[in-house]
Amino acid sequence: MKVGILGTGSVGRALAEGFVREGHDVLVGTRDVDELMARSEPDRMGTPPFAQWLAEHPRVAVGAFSHVGEHAELLVNATLGSASVDVLREAGLADAPGRIVIDASNALDHSGGFPPSLFVVNTDSLAEQIQREFPDARVVKAWNTMTASLMTNPGLLAGGDHSIPICGNDDDARRQVADLLRSFGWRDVVDLGDLTAARGMEAYVLFWLGLYGAAGSQLVNTKIVR
Amino acid sequence: MKVGILGTGSVGRALAEGFVREGHDVLVGTRDVDELMARSEPDRMGTPPFAQWLAEHPRVAVGAFSHVGEHAELLVNATLGSASVDVLREAGLADAPGRIVIDASNALDHSGGFPPSLFVVNTDSLAEQIQREFPDARVVKAWNTMTASLMTNPGLLAGGDHSIPICGNDDDARRQVADLLRSFGWRDVVDLGDLTAARGMEAYVLFWLGLYGAAGSQLVNTKIVR
Repeated sequence: MKVGILGTGSVGRALAEGFVREGHDVLVGTRDVDELMARSEPDRMGTPPFAQWLAEHPRVAVGAFSHVGEHAELLVNATLGSASVDVLREAGLADAPGRIVIDASNALDHSGGFPPSLFVVNTDSLAEQIQREFPDARVVKAWNTMTASLMTNPGLLAGGDHSIPICGNDDDARRQVADLLRSFGWRDVVDLGDLTAARGMEAYVLFWLGLYGAAGSQLVNTKIVR
Repeated sequence: MKVGILGTGSVGRALAEGFVREGHDVLVGTRDVDELMARSEPDRMGTPPFAQWLAEHPRVAVGAFSHVGEHAELLVNATLGSASVDVLREAGLADAPGRIVIDASNALDHSGGFPPSLFVVNTDSLAEQIQREFPDARVVKAWNTMTASLMTNPGLLAGGDHSIPICGNDDDARRQVADLLRSFGWRDVVDLGDLTAARGMEAYVLFWLGLYGAAGSQLVNTKIVR
């Protein structure tokens, strides 16, 4: 499958590695390719420059958002929550009816110090905002509930014995995403139904921050027991 | 131990049963004992009248909030989030420095239909509001992340192989509450640290609503995997 991953940070890279490993064609999108490739220093989170990462991942291609949107059958939003709608518009989502978009973004606002808060919460969610902005796209929320390294490698933690929730308004899109997640080794994909469940999935991140603090590691997740 | 449980709904009753089972002295608090005992119809959630429940639980005593506050060594807030501060004031918490209060409340607002939202969220929590209002009390958040029947009976689900998070500003109070929870059979009490973690624990309820919907049962919880 031709997969377009929007965002070149740790989430975009982890997802690109996973999709390549499973044999997909991966195109990673950014605003300005030249600027991205010219960076030679780690970012303020310590993430190595993208060009260095790309050199180590020769099967990944990089392109402008619009180029990625043109070529991808499946889009994954791995950008900051605050940038997501703009990036998806640049990627041409308004002109791609039926396109599945997996939204992995979070509405984290670090401006108030620790603990961070969410800039969309409770009665709305980023995923619903995206769906309202692009009503003909098929938005599925997934992957926002965990650290990047687990997203396509659930086996890194407890032999993969933990869960990944998803939600979205389109039954068929949710089924396709669930199958995709299983191909990455997720054994317990929990379908939470329509996109209003994204309010809970995004609010869960506030809970996850506590788990991260208690565990002293980002390799933490929940198993849904029922 | 003399335990005062504020609230006579399904949470207060489930907790009272659990504490009695473990041999504690249990006093359940309500605003107006006569009015409570005079009710002869189930409430709008279908919960049987309190007098009927009490007749089946002869070891539980009932009293006004102020009476409960006077006699209890440990208080548990099992009232609606919207009533909690008022009830705790009636229970004399302002005049009981060092008293441990386990806050099991949630800020659920059902006025907007389904899904419900929270009336305190994100940058604050009910537990923090209570702590600010009664700075000399020792507030520990616990039990708000699950259905009443699991609170003192974790073994009802998956042999008890799931988790209960707690948080609070006082280390000793958190330790005491963790020991208490273990006496009810909780094998994985997860200490999330200070009371700012209650923002995540209370926001988690929005996520829980999705789990409840997906599982089709309130007997659902998460196991924290790390």
